[in-house]
Amino acid sequence: MSENTVALKKLAVLGSTGSIGRQTLEIVRALPDHFRVLGLAAGDNLALLERQVREFQPELVSCRSGREKLSPGSYRFASLEEIAAYPDVDIVVIATSGKTGLNPALAAIRANKKIALSNKEPLVMAGEIILAEMKNSQGWILPVDSEHSAIWQCLNGEALKPARLILTASGGPFLRSLPAQLAEVTVDQALKHPSWNMGRKVTIDSATLMNKGLEVIEAHWLFDMPYDKIDILIHPQSIVHSMIELVDGSIKAQLSQPDMRLPIQYALSYPDRLPNATLPRLDWTRVGSLVFEPPDYDRFPCLKLALEAGRRGGTYPAVLCAADEVAVELFLNRRLPFNGIAALIEQVLGRHQNVDHPELPDILAADAWAREQAYQLSEEVNPCRS
Amino acid sequence: MSENTVALKKLAVLGSTGSIGRQTLEIVRALPDHFRVLGLAAGDNLALLERQVREFQPELVSCRSGREKLSPGSYRFASLEEIAAYPDVDIVVIATSGKTGLNPALAAIRANKKIALSNKEPLVMAGEIILAEMKNSQGWILPVDSEHSAIWQCLNGEALKPARLILTASGGPFLRSLPAQLAEVTVDQALKHPSWNMGRKVTIDSATLMNKGLEVIEAHWLFDMPYDKIDILIHPQSIVHSMIELVDGSIKAQLSQPDMRLPIQYALSYPDRLPNATLPRLDWTRVGSLVFEPPDYDRFPCLKLALEAGRRGGTYPAVLCAADEVAVELFLNRRLPFNGIAALIEQVLGRHQNVDHPELPDILAADAWAREQAYQLSEEVNPCRS
Repeated sequence: MSENTVALKKLAVLGSTGSIGRQTLEIVRALPDHFRVLGLAAGDNLALLERQVREFQPELVSCRSGREKLSPGSYRFASLEEIAAYPDVDIVVIATSGKTGLNPALAAIRANKKIALSNKEPLVMAGEIILAEMKNSQGWILPVDSEHSAIWQCLNGEALKPARLILTASGGPFLRSLPAQLAEVTVDQALKHPSWNMGRKVTIDSATLMNKGLEVIEAHWLFDMPYDKIDILIHPQSIVHSMIELVDGSIKAQLSQPDMRLPIQYALSYPDRLPNATLPRLDWTRVGSLVFEPPDYDRFPCLKLALEAGRRGGTYPAVLCAADEVAVELFLNRRLPFNGIAALIEQVLGRHQNVDHPELPDILAADAWAREQAYQLSEEVNPCRS
Repeated sequence: MSENTVALKKLAVLGSTGSIGRQTLEIVRALPDHFRVLGLAAGDNLALLERQVREFQPELVSCRSGREKLSPGSYRFASLEEIAAYPDVDIVVIATSGKTGLNPALAAIRANKKIALSNKEPLVMAGEIILAEMKNSQGWILPVDSEHSAIWQCLNGEALKPARLILTASGGPFLRSLPAQLAEVTVDQALKHPSWNMGRKVTIDSATLMNKGLEVIEAHWLFDMPYDKIDILIHPQSIVHSMIELVDGSIKAQLSQPDMRLPIQYALSYPDRLPNATLPRLDWTRVGSLVFEPPDYDRFPCLKLALEAGRRGGTYPAVLCAADEVAVELFLNRRLPFNGIAALIEQVLGRHQNVDHPELPDILAADAWAREQAYQLSEEVNPCRS
């Protein structure tokens, strides 16, 4: 499609007040001839949602609570699932966090929508179910994570399946920390990510490398790749966003300044690319050197736990996600030390009775069980902190 | 095309005893179900040509001289142009050096062949003429240079013209040499390239960075890019072979161990990729860091001369190539110091009367004039050395 034959794409943005949601709306603002927002859904940040509703004039709006506080307008309230399946919507941006995105993702696929997916948990928890739904649907997933976007951009034009995926990881703020230092990490330290500006949950997941583990599971489903053909490479500069190795040994990589607006825009503009001067350009005179090293699974046990849960499959990944959500919340509330996150998740996973090829109710049951277990175990482990 | 529906591609290899020619035949040897050799052409290395003829059983053979020394066989002798236009040939690999490849390239295009082109001079000298011929032909060029192959691989699947090409350069063996040291460079030092194993002429051109200048001119024609959108980046590890920046700021790069067999195979297998276990795989545990820096035009004046000749166009690039061929030959014969290469080329270019939009005879005349000038000037400059 050339710029002369622009087709306006209509978007629903679920999680519009979060980091990815706000950056999605920045892209819409920069490219008003290309995108229009038909639906906005937020959690509890009503002040920002109010401003977004005034600016983008959606037809459907959702918020977790307090809808009476929003000024009336030409919109109506709807559930996340209703917005995701709204007939006029072309692309549903699922930028919610945790398991919130799961039901809207399934609703969007059943309604034959394209999903720009930044919320990792739906695919991690229910990859098999989502892929099965996609077989009976015109809907499909446009990756938004910078790593999956990079792989997807590199795969563009390649007919054969790659031999290997190489996911890069910044390594987070504690890449060089000693085990003893990891025990003493504070919330403020963990929230300072060296290269990416993200939400709190994802930032903590980046510090533990859980995030990278979830991305490997996501990549497994998105690109139909076995786990032993997905490598992780620590790359502290966050300039190479990921790579693919092809059957002849050629490697393709995608690079840019770390800025989530680029993968968001690519997902929205695909199969086109759109000129956008507001996106940063890489200045090679400042890059200097790009460093690569293997990850240290001993210092970052969350990564090992995630890969094991992915390989085991069944309800393990749902348990992983649920236990991690609780553990990160407890850490942010200063009720669990930083290295307690992995320990708690490991305990919950160790107690889990797996269900192979689970149905959605099995996954939701595993999720609920894991949350309860995680809270219980944390009380037992840290009685004085609660 | 899947592996189950292999179409045998028939090749002519011009320059079969040179570095690229030999590596092309290694690919044919590794993938005998995919490629067959119908024509072989060499210069004076008759012993190797004899072995190649026995192994690959071509129908047509060419050598510069001494054809009576080759054992008779089921082949017949032919000119380079005849081999390039031979009806059964699908791809003409032009791995000759200097201006030798120009006429066969034109013959191949007129015969609607695909050309796997590693010989830089045809496009540099006569890019405008070759592109004009291609407009009336089914023939086209498959880049073989690692840099152009990298760009071509990255462009795969991209509908829009890129915003920028970024050619990487190893920087050659004298990347860190001081100007005074450059004056004292010996032939043996200049022939030791840090990362690539290539012919003598290309190795010296890599040491002066002339090679990179010629590649920029080639990229200008191959990818229809203005000179101000082609950047050069010194990258001593020679792992990133080149990059493209797209309209949204996304950068795609192609990486591999430095081994010319990969770009050769890609040109031959295009649009497919073929598994080939004989090609090296990049070992990320050994990569460590990839370094990038801008080139130093003052210490490497050949690069500046090449870019100026490219920008001026007309017959300047042909004069550049001819003067460089003579200067490198004189250096290899120890009749010119290393930093005399650029000085001699600059003098020849300075005396040239340009012809805009030249026809082939203008280019050949400029070539002959430049060679004569170069020899004459070198006698004047270095009377004692001759």
